[in-house]
Amino acid sequence: MAIQVYGFWRSIASFRVRVALKLKGLPFEEIPVDILSGQQFKPGYEDVNAERVVPTFIHDGYSLFQSLAIIEYIEDLQPEPPLLPHDPKERAYARSLALTTVADGHPLITPRVRNHLAKTFAADAHAVESWSGHWTTEGLATYERLFARRPPAPFALGEAPGLADICIAGHAIAAHFLKLELTAFPALARLAERCFALPAFATSHPFEQPGYKAHALR
Amino acid sequence: MAIQVYGFWRSIASFRVRVALKLKGLPFEEIPVDILSGQQFKPGYEDVNAERVVPTFIHDGYSLFQSLAIIEYIEDLQPEPPLLPHDPKERAYARSLALTTVADGHPLITPRVRNHLAKTFAADAHAVESWSGHWTTEGLATYERLFARRPPAPFALGEAPGLADICIAGHAIAAHFLKLELTAFPALARLAERCFALPAFATSHPFEQPGYKAHALR
Repeated sequence: MAIQVYGFWRSIASFRVRVALKLKGLPFEEIPVDILSGQQFKPGYEDVNAERVVPTFIHDGYSLFQSLAIIEYIEDLQPEPPLLPHDPKERAYARSLALTTVADGHPLITPRVRNHLAKTFAADAHAVESWSGHWTTEGLATYERLFARRPPAPFALGEAPGLADICIAGHAIAAHFLKLELTAFPALARLAERCFALPAFATSHPFEQPGYKAHALR
Repeated sequence: MAIQVYGFWRSIASFRVRVALKLKGLPFEEIPVDILSGQQFKPGYEDVNAERVVPTFIHDGYSLFQSLAIIEYIEDLQPEPPLLPHDPKERAYARSLALTTVADGHPLITPRVRNHLAKTFAADAHAVESWSGHWTTEGLATYERLFARRPPAPFALGEAPGLADICIAGHAIAAHFLKLELTAFPALARLAERCFALPAFATSHPFEQPGYKAHALR
């Protein structure tokens, strides 16, 4: 089984796919696409990904896009260890938690949105950072309200990390990029800490990717 | 089985849930939450939905949020007729198509985003409409590129309408709200037309909801 992932060190959606593959113990090759310099718009990549975004997941020639669809496919491909609970209500809750950042928090702070704000509203770096901070904080607050009702024990759905934790850890990375304090969100902060204590999460972190290391050396 | 949906006539995410329930033949009661006037921020609704958005799905006292998680739960609850293919690759493609609008196109044009643009960047109605038009057109173009590779036959995944069609029809509604021409996106336009020829889609359309009719009479 040959798996390739077109990804980018800073991409939180790429992070999610990386963690899922590592939790499943599936080896993969990552092909970097520098979405900050616009490599996704170069001829050729559109044939790989019609949306011109990362990640793209390639499995024995079968190509797939959208991180959540990719992770659900990985779950079908390799059911153990499960990333989603078997109980339908629990599975639905896991997906709801995932979508809170995948469909609400994260889409608002991607490079294409930040670039479009700068272009359309002449937003400077500070204004773009405030915009991103606002939406990321909204997500943090939603998670904290949810965790007040059902505390992670110790992961979002129980004893083992899964889809929800992967997405929430990605949200914590966004907060970290934006230098947001997590002190007002202690349950989320503890959950993220627990995730990053695991090698699958720690080694998938943007700052652990070769692309970041090359970038930091520049 | 008692199902209630907190929704809003204009909400595209509420539309998605409505169609799914109708395709499954599951009766439900819709409780309107006027997200244009800010009813979702009133005390009480946060207890129903920690994110303070619509839709919220209640099934015999079990509460669930995020339209895609809700539809997957409905699929688990009532497997026939299937809204997702059984083949893992096909199921993954259906989810990818759904997420193209759920996680990329739609989050950028919700009322809370439009309001925040107005507040933060002093964007007037025209600027907000341009913003929404830009992202909705990006989504239309992505779908058209995908359909050029794999034409709907006649629905996105084959003979029967499912999750992907529901989400794409919702994207077509957004385009309609924004008065965008679909002539440059003929495959998507045909797919949407086929969807809205079905009662489950037609009767779920925002303009067919009691809330819209009351609004239009004002």
